[in-house]
Amino acid sequence: MAKLVGNAIFGQSGGPTSVINASAAGVITEALKQDCIKNVYGAAHGIKGILEEKFYDMGMEDPKELELLKTTPSSALGSVRYKLADPDVDDTDYKRLLEVFKKYDIRYFFYNGGNDSMDTCNKVSKYLQKAGYECRVIGVPKTIDNDLAETDHCPGYGSAARYVAISTMEVYLDARVYDTPMVCVLEVMGRNAGWLTAATALASYKGAGPDLIYLPEITFDMDKFVRDVKEVYDKNGGKVIVAVSEGIKDKNGRYISEYGSDLAKEKDAFGHSQLGGAAQVLASVLKKELKCKTRAIEFSLLQRCAAHCASKTDVEESFMAGQMAVRYAVDGYSDYMVAYEREPGKEYRCKFKLVELSKVANAEKKVPREWITEDGTGLKQEFIDYALPLIQGESAPPMEDGLPRFARLKKVPVKK
Amino acid sequence: MAKLVGNAIFGQSGGPTSVINASAAGVITEALKQDCIKNVYGAAHGIKGILEEKFYDMGMEDPKELELLKTTPSSALGSVRYKLADPDVDDTDYKRLLEVFKKYDIRYFFYNGGNDSMDTCNKVSKYLQKAGYECRVIGVPKTIDNDLAETDHCPGYGSAARYVAISTMEVYLDARVYDTPMVCVLEVMGRNAGWLTAATALASYKGAGPDLIYLPEITFDMDKFVRDVKEVYDKNGGKVIVAVSEGIKDKNGRYISEYGSDLAKEKDAFGHSQLGGAAQVLASVLKKELKCKTRAIEFSLLQRCAAHCASKTDVEESFMAGQMAVRYAVDGYSDYMVAYEREPGKEYRCKFKLVELSKVANAEKKVPREWITEDGTGLKQEFIDYALPLIQGESAPPMEDGLPRFARLKKVPVKK
Repeated sequence: MAKLVGNAIFGQSGGPTSVINASAAGVITEALKQDCIKNVYGAAHGIKGILEEKFYDMGMEDPKELELLKTTPSSALGSVRYKLADPDVDDTDYKRLLEVFKKYDIRYFFYNGGNDSMDTCNKVSKYLQKAGYECRVIGVPKTIDNDLAETDHCPGYGSAARYVAISTMEVYLDARVYDTPMVCVLEVMGRNAGWLTAATALASYKGAGPDLIYLPEITFDMDKFVRDVKEVYDKNGGKVIVAVSEGIKDKNGRYISEYGSDLAKEKDAFGHSQLGGAAQVLASVLKKELKCKTRAIEFSLLQRCAAHCASKTDVEESFMAGQMAVRYAVDGYSDYMVAYEREPGKEYRCKFKLVELSKVANAEKKVPREWITEDGTGLKQEFIDYALPLIQGESAPPMEDGLPRFARLKKVPVKK
Repeated sequence: MAKLVGNAIFGQSGGPTSVINASAAGVITEALKQDCIKNVYGAAHGIKGILEEKFYDMGMEDPKELELLKTTPSSALGSVRYKLADPDVDDTDYKRLLEVFKKYDIRYFFYNGGNDSMDTCNKVSKYLQKAGYECRVIGVPKTIDNDLAETDHCPGYGSAARYVAISTMEVYLDARVYDTPMVCVLEVMGRNAGWLTAATALASYKGAGPDLIYLPEITFDMDKFVRDVKEVYDKNGGKVIVAVSEGIKDKNGRYISEYGSDLAKEKDAFGHSQLGGAAQVLASVLKKELKCKTRAIEFSLLQRCAAHCASKTDVEESFMAGQMAVRYAVDGYSDYMVAYEREPGKEYRCKFKLVELSKVANAEKKVPREWITEDGTGLKQEFIDYALPLIQGESAPPMEDGLPRFARLKKVPVKK
């Protein structure tokens, strides 16, 4: 196939991760090497930057800084949460995108994100096809939620899982120093899929993790929860560690975090202790039920930006996912997302493949029920075997004065 | 001076840190080397373990595990918060301690902790002196709060400061990925002294830190706070990062975290958003005032147990502080705490000295007013020069399966 000559644009979308910039480095450095790609543009704030013609000339960046992107957390070009309309209902954005693509001779479009971003990528791809505008569209996966379909795992998950597992082990040791009861509730990100919360089981596997783990895959029952905790409390001399997904819901589909508003009314019962997310709600409930010290810890943004303890496996795979996206596009593929395929066998090996964007857009992969223990409060060995290889190896940014030296991009705007 | 022959006991007290076990390793390994020290006991849960005759024979531990203590967070022997009575009012505990010391021929007492623990150490020392029981008592400092008097800094501070600075830099990058306003409030430990919150200024020094920093040393004024934030908000396109100490108080001495109970009443104004500590209170106030997305992040226990990104300088100094305590005691010193003295000159060098326990007990060292900017919302270069050397060098536990291999002590109980 004759090589398609033109410019390339790359955008980042959705919640950032520790390694989304590693994929950016992969896409950008690989695209800059390709003869058929004349200019490599970085979109400011994803699809929004393209609509507004705000993009940077990545060829102007210092290669050393592009290398540093591999260990720089967050989305260096800026991210966006912008849902494109159904083109049959409203094609304004699509017309504008086509206009911009034509104006800048964009023939390669790489979009890095999760399910919503793959939906954007898919819609753009289909529209450009329909419009007869030749452009290679490849999605690069990214999400700490690990919930993208058709791929063994997602760039970003391994590093977030490593941070969560390590921090859980550390908190485990800290939370049991006194010879008095202490119940600690850890809250991990994940609205619908419990992959990241499940990573706390890696700490348990090492003997320093939660006694109980609650994923959004299992309907949350407050009475059973209190019983579960009481049982561990009695068995372990009042020391209990619980991990919960932010997205746990009761049988009516109500988020446990929303219980906070009810509990706040019972002010007297809780004194000055006020409530926040799911962990704070549960810590308050347990404080009342067990009459002991409880503590809620939310990993919050920390779990998705802790580049200082990223998984080397994840960083390297994420970089390669970016590289592969460019290579596949140059080889003529379009309308796909790059995906990981784990090779069979005991030793972990992972190869790349392409999956149709339409199969990934908006789809969600959850933790299989059979990997969760019968009683719904823990993970089985199958999960450990799945997740452990993904957190291997240590990656950290180079240090300057004892602190990380993150990439500093020039972000030279492309003239309109 | 003839060497005092007998047994030694070591205890850990107060809130744990990433490096209190490094000091334990220093005390224990050094004590095991000394001929005049026959047995080295580790008290379970500090002074309480001594009162209850619960201690471990540290000579039975595998030297490899003792080495691993250097990179194991939390208090391996268990900690305690137990305030000894004034011996003139109630000497029950003291009589009991003397009984135990005599029974086990304890001639060396090493106690590792903060101000309260140094108070315990001081009281025990004075009582044993008065009772005419010869025992060398040396305190080993420890606190992430860095608020011990008579020492340049405290073991544990450098590592907590490094974690706080690195995490702040990472959150800084994460919190500005969208092109929409976002105000992020970080909450750092420190009830009365702002040293650890001030460490976020190290992130600002590297260009990725808070715009505003509020320490408990400065009376907190909510109206001024809102004005300060609005000013940065307008200047920076709605991107603001604020760091606050958990212990900030208003002019009436009321903790800002206590405002939560008032705010919870105004439920309608905040919808389902519930409140927790100071950061959550402030995030709620700002959400209401600025009508933008706000996020409260509490470093919680994470900041004091993050051995995975400890300061090597801190780990090494903490280990040596433990060693020095033993050497000083064997050399005949008693009734002192080991302290750090920074040598003058541009290059950081630190030596050890002894300070009287009575001068340290219950005293509190705060951040000097002249190191805080005039308007009370930032730190001056003097603080950076003070703190930066303390976070140098990287220390992490050895990894096994991508996860930390922390020390596993046998904890062989000493027969009663």
